[in-house]
Amino acid sequence: MTVSAETALPGPVLVIGCGLIGTSAALALTESGVVVHLEDIRSANLELAVSRGAGSSDPIESPALVIVAVPPAEVVETVQRVLSEWPAAAVTDVASVKADLHVRIGSLSGNARYVGSHPMAGSERSGPMAASARLFEGRPWAVTTGPDTDQHVVELVVRLAELVGGVPLVMDAEAHDQAVALVSHVPHILSVLTAAQLNGAPGEHLALAGPGLRDVTRIAGSDIALWQDILGANAEQVRAVLQAVREDLDRVIVSIGADADSLGEVLQSGQDGTRLIPGKHGDRVVDLSTVFVSVPDQPGEIPRLMAHVGESGVNIEDMRIDHELGRPVGQVEIAVLPVAADTLVEALTARGWSAYS
Amino acid sequence: MTVSAETALPGPVLVIGCGLIGTSAALALTESGVVVHLEDIRSANLELAVSRGAGSSDPIESPALVIVAVPPAEVVETVQRVLSEWPAAAVTDVASVKADLHVRIGSLSGNARYVGSHPMAGSERSGPMAASARLFEGRPWAVTTGPDTDQHVVELVVRLAELVGGVPLVMDAEAHDQAVALVSHVPHILSVLTAAQLNGAPGEHLALAGPGLRDVTRIAGSDIALWQDILGANAEQVRAVLQAVREDLDRVIVSIGADADSLGEVLQSGQDGTRLIPGKHGDRVVDLSTVFVSVPDQPGEIPRLMAHVGESGVNIEDMRIDHELGRPVGQVEIAVLPVAADTLVEALTARGWSAYS
Repeated sequence: MTVSAETALPGPVLVIGCGLIGTSAALALTESGVVVHLEDIRSANLELAVSRGAGSSDPIESPALVIVAVPPAEVVETVQRVLSEWPAAAVTDVASVKADLHVRIGSLSGNARYVGSHPMAGSERSGPMAASARLFEGRPWAVTTGPDTDQHVVELVVRLAELVGGVPLVMDAEAHDQAVALVSHVPHILSVLTAAQLNGAPGEHLALAGPGLRDVTRIAGSDIALWQDILGANAEQVRAVLQAVREDLDRVIVSIGADADSLGEVLQSGQDGTRLIPGKHGDRVVDLSTVFVSVPDQPGEIPRLMAHVGESGVNIEDMRIDHELGRPVGQVEIAVLPVAADTLVEALTARGWSAYS
Repeated sequence: MTVSAETALPGPVLVIGCGLIGTSAALALTESGVVVHLEDIRSANLELAVSRGAGSSDPIESPALVIVAVPPAEVVETVQRVLSEWPAAAVTDVASVKADLHVRIGSLSGNARYVGSHPMAGSERSGPMAASARLFEGRPWAVTTGPDTDQHVVELVVRLAELVGGVPLVMDAEAHDQAVALVSHVPHILSVLTAAQLNGAPGEHLALAGPGLRDVTRIAGSDIALWQDILGANAEQVRAVLQAVREDLDRVIVSIGADADSLGEVLQSGQDGTRLIPGKHGDRVVDLSTVFVSVPDQPGEIPRLMAHVGESGVNIEDMRIDHELGRPVGQVEIAVLPVAADTLVEALTARGWSAYS
């Protein structure tokens, strides 16, 4: 990654908090040639981040930008200290809920120099050893503003997001919280509610589970304490969407088996919703065809299959490996453009694979 | 696929209905050396199935087994005709809801020769041209029984399921319907309810969508008429689970922002539920580590990556290609056993890939 004129960021940058997000941002900035200093009250985290080349632990005199990457409960206090200690510095944080932060920071002296950030990136691991300069690549990075926000600081944080590989999206803090309630927090809760019903079911019932159930419930396995915090911080926005869910749920409960038209309207509304989700490269979703291939479950078989896909000249749009029940074989689902499906099936069949679309 | 002594099926077999499921079963049976005859009141479907080598359209004298693969509304009438026309034949159907069918068929003469089937396989396409002898490979195939069912017929249908590559699971028809409400029908509805909330949201809100939302809402894009039928036929069982969902939803609405412990209990219950879903090869889910790799979005890059994964000697447990926003690069997520994650990251980094775990 080279520093282009458009994305050059004035340094030095101070990162406070050497967890996953802070250390990842520091690694990406250092790699881009920005001078980065690090702080963490947990000296072990600080040492690890320094040892990974994320930056220097030397005291900093006058940072141009401070990234506050501390736990949510410590953000306001830390931002307050930073605004007062460095009167010329721009400040951002990385907490995942923003409106309340903007209100509380809005009453502080120097608040115009604060802009919120929410990089939509993470990992099931945490801490500086899990950090990566690549963590933000291609991920949305919300940049949130309040009524007093200095436009110069917004531009600086947009450049930060771009420099670490993210896709900056500037929005009002209220709009951000409403958006994440809709696209992240409520989907999480509905995934949890789906999975929660499985407790107590006989094993032979669960044996009928297919890939659909695994898709819907995947995110329900996430860290509980983290989600307690996130949902608690965005309670008002989440509750508003959940009440709309409840109305739709009641409509399904009443109409199922009694009013197929009304049930059909809810199903249609869901199908319409899926078509609004941005697809690959931020485009609208395009319809893809799926080619199914049976693959022996042993090292080297998937690479061998991929080599044959490569020989066919067909581009893979998406791919999944389906877990199978009771047999040592995997089914690979390769999503391709519809015009290419037959070509791929023929190419794979000719090379000895069991494939169909 | 060769016919082993355990899975040999007496023929000839008659398949009534040359849609996706009927034609796929016919193709798989023909490939195994079983003599298959075909019937379909839609002559175009019959001709297509015959032209694909699924079987013969000649009249059959005395089938050992009849597979009724007609639309749900025509199943009972067709089974009745078959039971009376061939007094020695075993009969099964492939509809996805079973208890009501067993009740209605239970009053027919010859009902002991009927066993229900529900192969848990499908495709976004339909009709004989979408059929494949591989459709059932590794998929659960529910075999449902009623109080009068002849054990010999159950064994015959179990052999059918095995012969076409499925994993037979014999269960009571009521238990089947309860199971699919839990693992398929209710997850479908919650996916729909999640997606339905997206209608009317501003585009900048949807731009924050990540892979979690896409996972939860994927199945909500399915065929609406099909799901109206399925849900209507299993209304009672589905409603019972939805009422439990509603209780949990109300608990979340009340506790969010007010009672973190109660919210945490619901989240815990969801996480527990995810761990009950059978994983690869029917085992319980094992925790896997994810290795993230950035891949240019052009033909040949994923095969090249897979070749390098193959050289590392690490087995791929699962894999996904994440759609990215606003940039021509894909992120591939490779799930591997935790002990192998560092090995894979090192091997890929050494070969020039941008990878982390």
